[in-house]
Amino acid sequence: MTGALRVAVSTVIFSLRGERLMIPLVRRTRDPFAGRWALPGGWLGAEEGLDDAAARTLADTTGLSASWLEQLYAFGDVDRSPDRVVSIVYWALLRSDLVEAQRSAAGAPENVEWFDVDALPPLAFDHADIVAYGAWRLRNKVGYSRIAAGLLPDEFTLTELRSVYEAVLGRRMDPSNFRRLIEGSPALVPTEGMRTGSHRPARLYRYDAELDSIDPGPLSS
Amino acid sequence: MTGALRVAVSTVIFSLRGERLMIPLVRRTRDPFAGRWALPGGWLGAEEGLDDAAARTLADTTGLSASWLEQLYAFGDVDRSPDRVVSIVYWALLRSDLVEAQRSAAGAPENVEWFDVDALPPLAFDHADIVAYGAWRLRNKVGYSRIAAGLLPDEFTLTELRSVYEAVLGRRMDPSNFRRLIEGSPALVPTEGMRTGSHRPARLYRYDAELDSIDPGPLSS
Repeated sequence: MTGALRVAVSTVIFSLRGERLMIPLVRRTRDPFAGRWALPGGWLGAEEGLDDAAARTLADTTGLSASWLEQLYAFGDVDRSPDRVVSIVYWALLRSDLVEAQRSAAGAPENVEWFDVDALPPLAFDHADIVAYGAWRLRNKVGYSRIAAGLLPDEFTLTELRSVYEAVLGRRMDPSNFRRLIEGSPALVPTEGMRTGSHRPARLYRYDAELDSIDPGPLSS
Repeated sequence: MTGALRVAVSTVIFSLRGERLMIPLVRRTRDPFAGRWALPGGWLGAEEGLDDAAARTLADTTGLSASWLEQLYAFGDVDRSPDRVVSIVYWALLRSDLVEAQRSAAGAPENVEWFDVDALPPLAFDHADIVAYGAWRLRNKVGYSRIAAGLLPDEFTLTELRSVYEAVLGRRMDPSNFRRLIEGSPALVPTEGMRTGSHRPARLYRYDAELDSIDPGPLSS
């Protein structure tokens, strides 16, 4: 039957560990590419939509639940797998403060490890290209949207927000230039709270999701 | 077999007629939705990649060949078709000066008509949502890329370029503000040529594709 082939759904889910941008990978237990690391994913179910399949296969393989999930691209080169497979790939963000909690709750799934996106092991299929494209999309998008908030708790200091930008973009930013640029954003709302601790107290901010300029996807329009 | 279902590829291809943003649609000759208008497209072939399938099915159904073609989104809701179908949708641009030439060369395919995107007939499947999303993506992208060039001949005046922005964005732009904004773009290169005719002569410009800021897609990185 023309047009009939297998459809998989996979997810590149980013989190921060300190200043490193990390993704979880799953070690394959069967051929093709047995023993290699691959993106979390699985087959699209007959009775589930693409977004649901992405969330389900991510949870099934890693125990993780994304703070933000968005479709990235459909990969369908003829030779990307021994059998013909079209992969609908999502990219996602996970707040760093939730990573450990979710891993513990899921009972630390086997065959899953986190890797620095700039120091990946050899990956199965075309997954190295897919991760590179996902990282490119993240870096591109962080410049003109509130996407950085998907890597932070609900409230954060400007220094914490700058750290996210620095980790994603892979370069240092001047603190006072950053503050000037970012404080002009109407979506960044100062709260009454302050972060106290070993440093001098710093104002806490939150993002106003109503002013979101992220591509909402076709289903929320 | 889990994951096995039908994969279609469809394309929303925009062109300008005067100041109207137009797309070609194909009248369906069989059920489901016989007689309704639908996006040009077809089944993904077993031996072709997604980009190739988009170009082929567009040519097969309309005789058209895009000036610019980019993946838009994969649509996979369970109930979007009586049978389970995932559609990988592309969006494309066709220079207005090439529309007539391509239609004549293809021998004017039957069942194809061009419609104003703001005055569409009832469409088959979820194609109305898809067109709306494609138009949203185009309008969003025209603001920060040289995508407008995909609707123009190689060389164009600033007035012609402003007409594209006005047609895509659906609003008037002040000529001198537009000129000031757009002349600052390093990708916009003045040529030695001038457009002469019923108006006073106007400088011709071209876009420098090397300075392209369009998302190149994962395969050209």
